Amino acid sequence: MVWTKKDLLGLEYLTQEEIEIILDTAESFKEVSTREIKKVPALRGKTAVNLFYEPSTRTRVSFEVAAKRLSADVINISTETSSVRKGETLIDTGKNIQALKADIIIMRHNCSGAANMLARALDISVVNAGDGWHEHPTQALLDMFTLKEKLGKIKGINVAIVGDISHSRVARSNIWGLTKLGANVTLCAPEILIPTGIELTGVKTSSNIDEVLKKADAVNVLRMQFERDEGTAFPEQWDYYRRFGITEERLAKAKKDIVVMHPGPINRGIEMSSEVADGANSVILEQVTNGIAVRMAVLFLVSQAREAKK
Amino acid sequence: MVWTKKDLLGLEYLTQEEIEIILDTAESFKEVSTREIKKVPALRGKTAVNLFYEPSTRTRVSFEVAAKRLSADVINISTETSSVRKGETLIDTGKNIQALKADIIIMRHNCSGAANMLARALDISVVNAGDGWHEHPTQALLDMFTLKEKLGKIKGINVAIVGDISHSRVARSNIWGLTKLGANVTLCAPEILIPTGIELTGVKTSSNIDEVLKKADAVNVLRMQFERDEGTAFPEQWDYYRRFGITEERLAKAKKDIVVMHPGPINRGIEMSSEVADGANSVILEQVTNGIAVRMAVLFLVSQAREAKK
Amino acid sequence: MVWTKKDLLGLEYLTQEEIEIILDTAESFKEVSTREIKKVPALRGKTAVNLFYEPSTRTRVSFEVAAKRLSADVINISTETSSVRKGETLIDTGKNIQALKADIIIMRHNCSGAANMLARALDISVVNAGDGWHEHPTQALLDMFTLKEKLGKIKGINVAIVGDISHSRVARSNIWGLTKLGANVTLCAPEILIPTGIELTGVKTSSNIDEVLKKADAVNVLRMQFERDEGTAFPEQWDYYRRFGITEERLAKAKKDIVVMHPGPINRGIEMSSEVADGANSVILEQVTNGIAVRMAVLFLVSQAREAKK
Repeated sequence: MVWTKKDLLGLEYLTQEEIEIILDTAESFKEVSTREIKKVPALRGKTAVNLFYEPSTRTRVSFEVAAKRLSADVINISTETSSVRKGETLIDTGKNIQALKADIIIMRHNCSGAANMLARALDISVVNAGDGWHEHPTQALLDMFTLKEKLGKIKGINVAIVGDISHSRVARSNIWGLTKLGANVTLCAPEILIPTGIELTGVKTSSNIDEVLKKADAVNVLRMQFERDEGTAFPEQWDYYRRFGITEERLAKAKKDIVVMHPGPINRGIEMSSEVADGANSVILEQVTNGIAVRMAVLFLVSQAREAKK
Repeated sequence: MVWTKKDLLGLEYLTQEEIEIILDTAESFKEVSTREIKKVPALRGKTAVNLFYEPSTRTRVSFEVAAKRLSADVINISTETSSVRKGETLIDTGKNIQALKADIIIMRHNCSGAANMLARALDISVVNAGDGWHEHPTQALLDMFTLKEKLGKIKGINVAIVGDISHSRVARSNIWGLTKLGANVTLCAPEILIPTGIELTGVKTSSNIDEVLKKADAVNVLRMQFERDEGTAFPEQWDYYRRFGITEERLAKAKKDIVVMHPGPINRGIEMSSEVADGANSVILEQVTNGIAVRMAVLFLVSQAREAKK
Repeated sequence: MVWTKKDLLGLEYLTQEEIEIILDTAESFKEVSTREIKKVPALRGKTAVNLFYEPSTRTRVSFEVAAKRLSADVINISTETSSVRKGETLIDTGKNIQALKADIIIMRHNCSGAANMLARALDISVVNAGDGWHEHPTQALLDMFTLKEKLGKIKGINVAIVGDISHSRVARSNIWGLTKLGANVTLCAPEILIPTGIELTGVKTSSNIDEVLKKADAVNVLRMQFERDEGTAFPEQWDYYRRFGITEERLAKAKKDIVVMHPGPINRGIEMSSEVADGANSVILEQVTNGIAVRMAVLFLVSQAREAKK
């Protein structure tokens, strides 16, 4: 089976096989970043555009490094300086970038569905780097790559996702991906932060972190986005830590080799303690390393698929 | 004849032959962006600096893509983060960039004449990416390249320029270029937006868009810069659209193959209808594509001329 | 002797021999920027990250140009758009950049000691591009490179440093470097701007600029950072110029070939007159040119040392 999609919009739209192609391709790219000369010519002479309508240094930099290791030219556009300020529509912006003969648009946008809309309007590749509360597929892919690396497989493993599920595109993409690859997913959060009816996707839910941790092979701890949310119904930070924070005491009662993940940046003392973040079970920095490999794979695959169609 | 100027400051300063050299060179570079590997080594090991005192994603990105397709290294400097904030003069900034052994400064500045002043002070090349209400030569060159491509020639064609002529460096550069290459230019706008005495440059003026469209082979629709202008004597947006907006009804009475151009970003429903912007006569996205070829040509020519002088 | 340090944090931490290695290496790199193709493959496939917590176009651009002339990939991160806004600690940010398999972090930070702290936490190289009032080692190195180039040696020369010594990391790095290489350093400023006890480092102090200039082989004029300081005890700008400004009248009484330096950007009419800044004794723009060579040397040396350790 080969990859044929020109875009990566979300894990909802991929088959199990397609997800596995990405993970396998990422595995072969991971070695590149360990070389003395960390560069392959796979996308030489191609232009990748980082189009970020929300600030996100981490994701932008990860995609920029990935694209440059593939020898692509990278152009950064962020809202603050873009002609969006002059009232241009998203589609117009996309068509203009296409007219520059760019090959890939990597887009972060605050509206759910923005990447899908753009991809339909364009012939060039669109990679979703996070759209509203919808999906953040490369984050979920790097999470799954890391799980596979640490646990040897995805099928049958128990993964707990802890935190504000309702407002998390990372959770949404992980749910799609993990269930497609046969993992057992449990969402753990205060009830108000779990979307009603989410069990229909095949996941379990719980508000008892200690119970959940007992069975988990891995726990993916979401970032509490307090900066996006002032004065609403969110639990107080200290209460959240007391009830859901991943501490050494809690981990002591979990499986010995439980894998602790976090998409970063961590709020130390809110989502988890510093000891856990830097501890033996944490793979948080390995996730960052794997993010480069996964994004290289995605950029390479969508670009290949588009070349094949021409 | 060969190109000998180290700078591109405006079409006012170029001969007909020089404009034609740029257009011919652009034609040969246009093919590069259609290759699988969109890159030639023409400016390898050269440093181009985008020095933008006004935000302009479109122009900056177009120059950045053009320079990278020529294999140049590109450095972006924008006012917000520049030592301009520390009170350094433009000439000092330019001399510092020259001392870095950069080869080309591509400058956008809000003062008319800024590029001319900088070019006189420096040995390295200066390319004007728009200075105040003065000139935006590469925009006019890409407009002319597109006209030549669509209509086969510039000499003798009828070009209408519609919009706020008074405050438009795009209009000014187009007037210089088109009249030098023998086109018949008609400016069409509310009287208050046409500079008095402009007819001395050899152009005609009119405030009747329907009359003007009847004879035009091409219409270049300027952007109404409402964001720069709050509460002054500009016509109201809806009144402007009613009187001057390019609509399908208006186009139906024009020549069948009339070429519709716009430098972007378009205010849909103000300067033209969406149907026209995306319609069969519109070459707006082709202009964007041609912008890369024209800017590659300009960067290459000024760089060659400077090398020859050393 | 060979260079073995993975970081460049300050001249305080270097031996005389190590400083000389950097200056000698810079000399061999200086030639690269005079070539038609200004590029060597020394850092090809390496990733350098400009991590700037304070805006500084000049230093950022100089490092970016230096890294690109060594063929490194360069990633720019500035505070405004970084996840620092999301409350991530400096160490977390550094570890994340390391996890991207970047090779060098070039950091500007407003806290003294920030680069030292980061370097201790990471295996990859950290180059201090200015930390608080502590050090700005590459600026001092380019100053010393320029002095050696102009005067043939550092040992035994008389260097006056004029301006706000107390708040100047440039002064601090110059004092460490110049005294280690055997220059005689005199600090000249209003008493309130000279740290008490500074004579213990082996320098002299004076508040009489005319006396100081008489004996100086070189004068390094610091920038008065008025923009950082509103309404404090600084001397008024005009009074400062009258008492300490380097004017043609003052230079006329100095050694004929006195070397006039300034780290830029110059406040013309405050630290020195325009005539002096642009005059025959000024080497201010040569300092900028030498900055590229020195930074290429530093990036190359720390990268080599780290490769050797692996």
